Amino acid sequence: MNTAPSAVGTLTEPDTPFAVVDVCKVRRNIDRLAAKADRLGVTLRPHVKTAKSLDTASLLHDGTPCPIAVSTLAEAEAFAEGGYTDITYAVGIDPHKLPRVIALARRGTTLRILLDSREQAAFVTDAARAAGIVIPTQIEVDCDGHRGGVKRDDPALTEIGRTLHDAGCLDGVLVHAGESYFAHTPVEQRLAAKNERDIAVAAADTLRAAGLPVHTVSVGSTPTAHAADNLTGVTELRAGNYLFFDLVMSGLGVCQMDDLALSVVVTVIGHRPEYGWILTDGGWMAMSRDRGTAAQPQDQGYGLVTDLQGNLIPDLVMSQASQEHGTLTARDGADLPDLPIGTRVRILPNHACATAAQHHGYHIIDSTRPMNVTPAVQAFWNRVTGW
Amino acid sequence: MNTAPSAVGTLTEPDTPFAVVDVCKVRRNIDRLAAKADRLGVTLRPHVKTAKSLDTASLLHDGTPCPIAVSTLAEAEAFAEGGYTDITYAVGIDPHKLPRVIALARRGTTLRILLDSREQAAFVTDAARAAGIVIPTQIEVDCDGHRGGVKRDDPALTEIGRTLHDAGCLDGVLVHAGESYFAHTPVEQRLAAKNERDIAVAAADTLRAAGLPVHTVSVGSTPTAHAADNLTGVTELRAGNYLFFDLVMSGLGVCQMDDLALSVVVTVIGHRPEYGWILTDGGWMAMSRDRGTAAQPQDQGYGLVTDLQGNLIPDLVMSQASQEHGTLTARDGADLPDLPIGTRVRILPNHACATAAQHHGYHIIDSTRPMNVTPAVQAFWNRVTGW
Repeated sequence: MNTAPSAVGTLTEPDTPFAVVDVCKVRRNIDRLAAKADRLGVTLRPHVKTAKSLDTASLLHDGTPCPIAVSTLAEAEAFAEGGYTDITYAVGIDPHKLPRVIALARRGTTLRILLDSREQAAFVTDAARAAGIVIPTQIEVDCDGHRGGVKRDDPALTEIGRTLHDAGCLDGVLVHAGESYFAHTPVEQRLAAKNERDIAVAAADTLRAAGLPVHTVSVGSTPTAHAADNLTGVTELRAGNYLFFDLVMSGLGVCQMDDLALSVVVTVIGHRPEYGWILTDGGWMAMSRDRGTAAQPQDQGYGLVTDLQGNLIPDLVMSQASQEHGTLTARDGADLPDLPIGTRVRILPNHACATAAQHHGYHIIDSTRPMNVTPAVQAFWNRVTGW
Repeated sequence: MNTAPSAVGTLTEPDTPFAVVDVCKVRRNIDRLAAKADRLGVTLRPHVKTAKSLDTASLLHDGTPCPIAVSTLAEAEAFAEGGYTDITYAVGIDPHKLPRVIALARRGTTLRILLDSREQAAFVTDAARAAGIVIPTQIEVDCDGHRGGVKRDDPALTEIGRTLHDAGCLDGVLVHAGESYFAHTPVEQRLAAKNERDIAVAAADTLRAAGLPVHTVSVGSTPTAHAADNLTGVTELRAGNYLFFDLVMSGLGVCQMDDLALSVVVTVIGHRPEYGWILTDGGWMAMSRDRGTAAQPQDQGYGLVTDLQGNLIPDLVMSQASQEHGTLTARDGADLPDLPIGTRVRILPNHACATAAQHHGYHIIDSTRPMNVTPAVQAFWNRVTGW
């Protein structure tokens, strides 16, 4: 099986489809947000759910593991094993998962967990007392009706805070402006960032006014992290997608097309000129079924197409996908480029988190200028999978 | 990491989300189509791209590996390793992949490949001659403008056939009625099956009329395989999804809801009564982004919900997904059921191929009647992954 490829040669060599990460772009994306967090005076806590890769995460810091957020306990366990000691598991806790949380705490990892209900606060504090440990816990506060969280004016906020505090488990509040993925202008994104910050600080103030100490005031999403201009009262900023970025983010203007660090190499395997189709061996198994740009002003299908060197092929879009077939079509009546069978192209994805999840790992390149050389593969970096 | 779970206990034990396969239903689905293929007098060649599991495939036969179709060379290699000797790789061949095709042929596997262009026929026959072997090759013929294939009246058909025949590589023709997934009535499905058969037989006749021997006349999709009532002239029938079925197939009437063999167990982790939401720990990472029923008369969101025993919870649908969160809502103003935090439910997916691909493998149950007992986990069956 083609699951542990060797890291040699160029992008012409591994069998397609396969995922490519351009570390030159990842480094640039990391540096941009790190500089911003510095300017705003907050700790940056990257979310590793997009890349799910210890190697990729190592680009975030110089040898000293930084604070991170994770989306699964499998990530928490893998990163703890890799030396990360300050981890936020940013999904509401399920009681059944507490034994793994406690096991991580006992091995010395500061694993912060999240909840938004009295029921969860009760079973977390019961479990912490029974184990004789502290489980640092954040209360999720809703800022935009996107998903979970208590409203910041809900009496449950202080009740949960008190339950946690009485067991020594209250760490702080966490807010995620999930609706910012649908904020299509810089003004809307700045407003979403301001709202996210304002709600987080107000929730922290509510808890403090009730005599409950709040250490962490955590906010973030990739759009709001890049749009925020004032994070007074906030202690940390989370973002994940920004390491790779994708067409949804470039569609929102959060990044430029040239910042997209993840792509999938596919091969042309057929032509249907009567329909205007070029068929490739990269379908939804390689790209995911994510159609995130369908809700944006410019729908990018399943992705845009570049040559193997990374130069965009104008007006060409991956418009359809079946399991192992992709269909490339020309936009707006443009001519189809001449891509003979066997030609390799790269597809820039809608949603990096979803596309990355379809692959065991990444073939690593470091893009060069001018972009007329087929990039060498420098390494293969594995992903953490499962839950 | 939770990647090699033990096969003990019941569905209450593994950490969620995880995939479950009910072998009782798989056996029933297998028996139904096997009986139909027998009645129609054709060989059944199951497509293993849905389950991608040697254990699941073993339910197809009694110890003697049967003919199969695969969607990747990784599947071909894994199933060849597992003793399967008659395999069709049903994706148009990329020249770069021929070394792996030849390697399988040299180890004694009859690996049939697919193509639909003169260019592919030329490089396949060049490679076969250079290797001193025969590569049994099928010509893909288009019956409904769904994806690849030559038109059966295109002169390319006989030209390709002759090129293949001259190298001893012509095996036959293959047709796939991909548009049958959008055939919403039994009449439309029967017409799609008739058209698929008619085009395949006509293409074979065209080749034979040109003096080219045609061994294999292969047709199939899950809808047409179940709708066909006459396959005269066809030698084999392909179908894959039918082992598991899914909401797209039940929406088309190809199966009943009770035939769905794949589900994902998730846990309730929150409530937003003000929005009518129950939040779970199963998002698109567990279900995939597939929204196949969105194009059907009854849109089933990301899936329907059953209790842990498999009984449908009326009017409850998984309507939204983020990476590790699912949102359950009530349909048509129905009341939300009382599902406290920690409750486990099962989600029936839109598209079994896509949902299965999000998991390392399957927790195996064998459903019982009456459905008031939480099923025991009998085994964990791994999937083949990658390309």
